[in-house]
Amino acid sequence: MNYPNGIKRKNTISILTHKNRGMTLENDINETNEYYREIDKAYIYKKPTPIKITKVDYPSRDKAVIKEAFFTVPSTTDYNGIYKGKYIDFEAKETKNKTSFPLANIHSHQIEHIKNVYKHNGVVFLIIRFVTLNKTYLLLGKEFINFITDNTRKSIPLSFFEEHAYLLKDGYRPRLDYLKIIDKIIGGI
Amino acid sequence: MNYPNGIKRKNTISILTHKNRGMTLENDINETNEYYREIDKAYIYKKPTPIKITKVDYPSRDKAVIKEAFFTVPSTTDYNGIYKGKYIDFEAKETKNKTSFPLANIHSHQIEHIKNVYKHNGVVFLIIRFVTLNKTYLLLGKEFINFITDNTRKSIPLSFFEEHAYLLKDGYRPRLDYLKIIDKIIGGI
Repeated sequence: MNYPNGIKRKNTISILTHKNRGMTLENDINETNEYYREIDKAYIYKKPTPIKITKVDYPSRDKAVIKEAFFTVPSTTDYNGIYKGKYIDFEAKETKNKTSFPLANIHSHQIEHIKNVYKHNGVVFLIIRFVTLNKTYLLLGKEFINFITDNTRKSIPLSFFEEHAYLLKDGYRPRLDYLKIIDKIIGGI
Repeated sequence: MNYPNGIKRKNTISILTHKNRGMTLENDINETNEYYREIDKAYIYKKPTPIKITKVDYPSRDKAVIKEAFFTVPSTTDYNGIYKGKYIDFEAKETKNKTSFPLANIHSHQIEHIKNVYKHNGVVFLIIRFVTLNKTYLLLGKEFINFITDNTRKSIPLSFFEEHAYLLKDGYRPRLDYLKIIDKIIGGI
């Protein structure tokens, strides 16, 4: 499947993750989710990268090697799971842009998915990191949907995050305590 | 990662799915989930097959081809999503065995995951098809956990399904209306 941005992004992330572990948003979230599981707080996982496998080899009876596969466009967000009995669902994205978050980073399938989860009372949100500004925001699905409904812009300005999103502070363990924000929203359930 | 059964199973399923579409449990569930999405009833998806990508080529600037990857053991179940605001999570397996379901089909990670989701009030279950008997059962996570807690057996006898699981009838649309059973359990929410 021809999906330049998606593919470049995935590949970039995997390289970064490998080179300087812990520097990417994906790593911060994965380690945060591991921590939540360790303390039995929440069970939230990143979905595997969706691919279409076209060739598989069997060098030995009990081993398979994928020899050809292609990245495909995700139909949902990357992260989901359970917290306090509730369905949790979110997408995480980094941008080098200093003034706005380009909506091209979120596929149309994912926007539809966010709308559907919100409509069905799931806890859905975006975690957006402005890498150059070193700022990470949690934007609720509701606010995200409001923005794309009320605007024709191709990007969400930083000012919208400053007004409508929650700033996530970096920590040691967990790296990015996003459930602290979710607690405020779902209340002391 | 060396995981003979897991790999064989995955590969077998993908080939079957391709050869005689609609004949496998995976297909029945995927088409059922598509139907649930179409009628805006539930948003439940199969997670992509977990793999570790080790080589990626770029034949052209905007196209990536995975040239080497390996199947990895899933840390969670294959299917999850949202229904009536609740977190839904399940694993689906086929067996050719006529008298029992071999527990080797469920990885230890998945058993732990089922326990955790149950403990955190998610709606978690197994869908097991006895291919040769042409019988498909929905076994609640609670019953599954009870069985493995009370038994040292390496397989769940058919009789246990007959007593403690729900028989799922094949249909046209949806193919396998498993949410009808879930409705009985979560009540008229």
